Amino acid sequence: MRKVGIVGIGHVGATVAHLIVSQGLADELVLIDKKPEKVASEALDFSDASSLLDKHIDVHVGDYPDLADADVVISALGHIHLIKPDGDRFGELKANLPMAKQVGADLKAVGFNGVLLAISNPVDVITGIYQQATGLPSAQVIGTGTYLDTARLKRVFGEALGVDPRSVNGYVLGEHGASQFAAWSTVNVMGQNARTWAAEKSLDLDKLENDARVGGFTVHSGKGYTNFAIAHAAVSLLQIILSDARKEAIVSHYNEDFDGYISSPAIIGRGGVVANFDLPLTPEEQDKLAASAKAIQTKTTDYS
Amino acid sequence: MRKVGIVGIGHVGATVAHLIVSQGLADELVLIDKKPEKVASEALDFSDASSLLDKHIDVHVGDYPDLADADVVISALGHIHLIKPDGDRFGELKANLPMAKQVGADLKAVGFNGVLLAISNPVDVITGIYQQATGLPSAQVIGTGTYLDTARLKRVFGEALGVDPRSVNGYVLGEHGASQFAAWSTVNVMGQNARTWAAEKSLDLDKLENDARVGGFTVHSGKGYTNFAIAHAAVSLLQIILSDARKEAIVSHYNEDFDGYISSPAIIGRGGVVANFDLPLTPEEQDKLAASAKAIQTKTTDYS
Amino acid sequence: MRKVGIVGIGHVGATVAHLIVSQGLADELVLIDKKPEKVASEALDFSDASSLLDKHIDVHVGDYPDLADADVVISALGHIHLIKPDGDRFGELKANLPMAKQVGADLKAVGFNGVLLAISNPVDVITGIYQQATGLPSAQVIGTGTYLDTARLKRVFGEALGVDPRSVNGYVLGEHGASQFAAWSTVNVMGQNARTWAAEKSLDLDKLENDARVGGFTVHSGKGYTNFAIAHAAVSLLQIILSDARKEAIVSHYNEDFDGYISSPAIIGRGGVVANFDLPLTPEEQDKLAASAKAIQTKTTDYS
Amino acid sequence: MRKVGIVGIGHVGATVAHLIVSQGLADELVLIDKKPEKVASEALDFSDASSLLDKHIDVHVGDYPDLADADVVISALGHIHLIKPDGDRFGELKANLPMAKQVGADLKAVGFNGVLLAISNPVDVITGIYQQATGLPSAQVIGTGTYLDTARLKRVFGEALGVDPRSVNGYVLGEHGASQFAAWSTVNVMGQNARTWAAEKSLDLDKLENDARVGGFTVHSGKGYTNFAIAHAAVSLLQIILSDARKEAIVSHYNEDFDGYISSPAIIGRGGVVANFDLPLTPEEQDKLAASAKAIQTKTTDYS
Repeated sequence: MRKVGIVGIGHVGATVAHLIVSQGLADELVLIDKKPEKVASEALDFSDASSLLDKHIDVHVGDYPDLADADVVISALGHIHLIKPDGDRFGELKANLPMAKQVGADLKAVGFNGVLLAISNPVDVITGIYQQATGLPSAQVIGTGTYLDTARLKRVFGEALGVDPRSVNGYVLGEHGASQFAAWSTVNVMGQNARTWAAEKSLDLDKLENDARVGGFTVHSGKGYTNFAIAHAAVSLLQIILSDARKEAIVSHYNEDFDGYISSPAIIGRGGVVANFDLPLTPEEQDKLAASAKAIQTKTTDYS
Repeated sequence: MRKVGIVGIGHVGATVAHLIVSQGLADELVLIDKKPEKVASEALDFSDASSLLDKHIDVHVGDYPDLADADVVISALGHIHLIKPDGDRFGELKANLPMAKQVGADLKAVGFNGVLLAISNPVDVITGIYQQATGLPSAQVIGTGTYLDTARLKRVFGEALGVDPRSVNGYVLGEHGASQFAAWSTVNVMGQNARTWAAEKSLDLDKLENDARVGGFTVHSGKGYTNFAIAHAAVSLLQIILSDARKEAIVSHYNEDFDGYISSPAIIGRGGVVANFDLPLTPEEQDKLAASAKAIQTKTTDYS
Repeated sequence: MRKVGIVGIGHVGATVAHLIVSQGLADELVLIDKKPEKVASEALDFSDASSLLDKHIDVHVGDYPDLADADVVISALGHIHLIKPDGDRFGELKANLPMAKQVGADLKAVGFNGVLLAISNPVDVITGIYQQATGLPSAQVIGTGTYLDTARLKRVFGEALGVDPRSVNGYVLGEHGASQFAAWSTVNVMGQNARTWAAEKSLDLDKLENDARVGGFTVHSGKGYTNFAIAHAAVSLLQIILSDARKEAIVSHYNEDFDGYISSPAIIGRGGVVANFDLPLTPEEQDKLAASAKAIQTKTTDYS
Repeated sequence: MRKVGIVGIGHVGATVAHLIVSQGLADELVLIDKKPEKVASEALDFSDASSLLDKHIDVHVGDYPDLADADVVISALGHIHLIKPDGDRFGELKANLPMAKQVGADLKAVGFNGVLLAISNPVDVITGIYQQATGLPSAQVIGTGTYLDTARLKRVFGEALGVDPRSVNGYVLGEHGASQFAAWSTVNVMGQNARTWAAEKSLDLDKLENDARVGGFTVHSGKGYTNFAIAHAAVSLLQIILSDARKEAIVSHYNEDFDGYISSPAIIGRGGVVANFDLPLTPEEQDKLAASAKAIQTKTTDYS
């Protein structure tokens, strides 16, 4: 039995839950939220669909003791209205930090020993908070990080070349926020590097990088939140974890060099980060990564 | 190529779109909404997920000319905040009626000749409006009707017996609204009728019927709208239509006896209602169906 | 982690494995067969596909100790060439019986305590043998029985009415063999019983029943074996078990009245048969079921 | 409606059909084979499963006129027993060539204008024959080529690193046969080239390349044919074509430089090869590709 919990059933949490339910990605799904009427209504909406689904899933409202034997817990709690007009996700820090500490403590209290996957923002900081609060090995606590930003880069670069974004390889590294950057040396399509493509096709890589970065704010400004793509990123990681796929994915995970959480690719499996390899980067990209790690630390202090 | 359009990208329309995108149920999906920023942001959110999906789908904002060759158009427009505190979906009629007329006229103008599937409430009335406005054969214009109410009845009856709701057969007939009723003579589990089960297991069928009827209001009151189960109902019908499955399903469709739209089971395929059989009902159930048809007519007059 | 084992990787076992692999229905799949080169080649063929699959699954050749903690073990062993020209599956009994005893003993020896799902023929007898050899509670040992015959009846009846077979409810009961019978009192489409349909549409129910019964032999005679539909039947049951769906399904399970294994519907979940209800049958149908149980016993003696 | 035809319903054709049926990848599937009893029995086996499937699909035996409006036709005909002990697929040439000419002429006669996807061996030659016989634009006629060999390379390289093969990028180029080669300059995992990995992890790339090349023969010698992985390769391409994904994939397609069919990556969509980019290769790899093209030509002459 694959048991998953979601803490925080707002727009993102509910959409993550919906993907799990509609695709049968777990056998039991526990929903936890501070608003009992809201979460009960989401659970009922899912249950109402149960005769229309191909796969059976037991979805119900629960509490932390229900997560003691969960394989994965997803943190989708947040205060999206606190994100600043310029899109800075640190606007949520003050509100989300004490909640993450409490959720982490609650998970620790019930003996949760699975993988904790954080979506909550600012995700690099919050994921670190979760690791401390749960006391879990750092490998078992990861964040969605720049998985979504990488997906956005694949979209804009794929559109520029007129190819499916699934044909684009490469990564956006660093903070899930302003200091992130497209590691162009890693980006390629059909074996050819992005810079060569740019030269051939007269592409403005800086513009593409920025389009990817602000993609989230465009979505956010149009509907007040983002939920679909981020939910797919989370669920994609969930599947990798539950099936112990040992698949490469970019996640926010603990980085020894910076003593903090930041996004770079890792091998993900049942135990979270199950292997870690150095990504070959240019010196310039290495500097950007270090600068992004520094930016996370600075903003954490500034906003706390 | 399977081409689908959705008109009205609110909570329900966006969730229907998400199911189509996440499950690859169409090859091209056109989103139409009066709020350009909102719909653009939804389309972008889907596009951001495209590198994370198993299947490719071209999802984009469009206008009515884009629907000229659509296989199916789904109407998800609505004004859910106008639903009355007692859950009466006729509260939306005045606002939705002129919009449905306009959308129907726009579809007619571009020569749309596929199946029009209406979710908009009050669905029995709005579906009829769509048929008139488009001038399409009545078989090609159907509404989700009591498909969702039937799913709710399966949930409550399945829970009462401790079995998967997919093991429950039967129908909720009539209005997708207050005058609907569980046709208990059609409800069975493992070949045994609901009344026999009720006698054996001391079930209160009236209570179960009411639980199913008010299920939507419970969801509605908890989160301000319902979207997941209704989206699954719509998408389930969409799949039946696109694959020309000739599968039995309960939908709101034109009923000659009452000269109006009301829900009873029909055989659904590429042409919408492709066959129609009389459902064997008790005299009491036949009276209830007639009363429900009457109630739809009366309320249509009252609320217009 | 969902762990499944398959014993016997012939046409049926390999096709069952393929469905599990291609649809990601388990996280680990253990293949066991007496022919090491054959089973290794099947496992390699699956592994070769792994980069092309949406979901990760660990599929490998194994031995009985690997099944100690399996959730479900599927017996697909058999000697299909021993099925007689008239299609009598008892032709396989002498060859399959000692193998089933050995497999059951091997599973017992490693402490297997999941659900054992038998496809091997004659399935009603072999499933009983497995229950005895493993010493598992009878609820945990089930056979595909007339699940496939029921699917065939749905096909022929659906074709006769021009509707999707998923719109047909009802059961073929008794032996997965010559003495099976369509329980017409349980068969209905859109709430109307098969006999009423037959009267309205001039259908010959005896012919339809026979078409369903001999369907397997037609497939068998054309290609030397049957594999696709039976694999779907097995996998359908597998999903019900693994997700603890508590869904109604027709399986060969222990019947106290006849002190033997025979097919009738039951509620299936994580523990195998998790609930059992009496199916309302006509006296004639009850007699046929008893006669079928008797036929199984008689043939078991005759062919042993 | 997505209409697909398969010509040749042996082990591979039947497995391709099964994937299409079980995953609902088309709405209508036409099966054509010279052995009427065999193909009828396969079609019946699929139909028997129809009530057990999530999605409806109309699968039936047909003839060439049924393929006039097919979106994609897959050629799976072959004489696998003629493959030589050393695995040389040219052993099938003499038998398959006249059949491919005839099938191509039959498709031309009915006006087929979709994409023709060839699996039949020797696939590079047979695909070229199909292009000539149908008179279709070369973009619309492609072969599975080294798609499967590439999948095998991903498997062996992923196993060597202990990561999911879906984390391996890169290509096996050239003939689907002895002269194929791993283009190591294109192979990378997590942004790091295969040669760097090999140095770090002491991997023998020549051995890995050979393991991938002979993978098919290992499967073949163990069970007499290969079907699962090749069917996934074909179906993966089918989905890309039907959804007009414009996704990068390695296929056997017409190469102007060599005036023949050979495998290199291309952008695949509704029209077959919809875009073509030069793959950056080392001079050594370019020589190997030219040598492979030459080998195909030479063997074509030798075996004709």
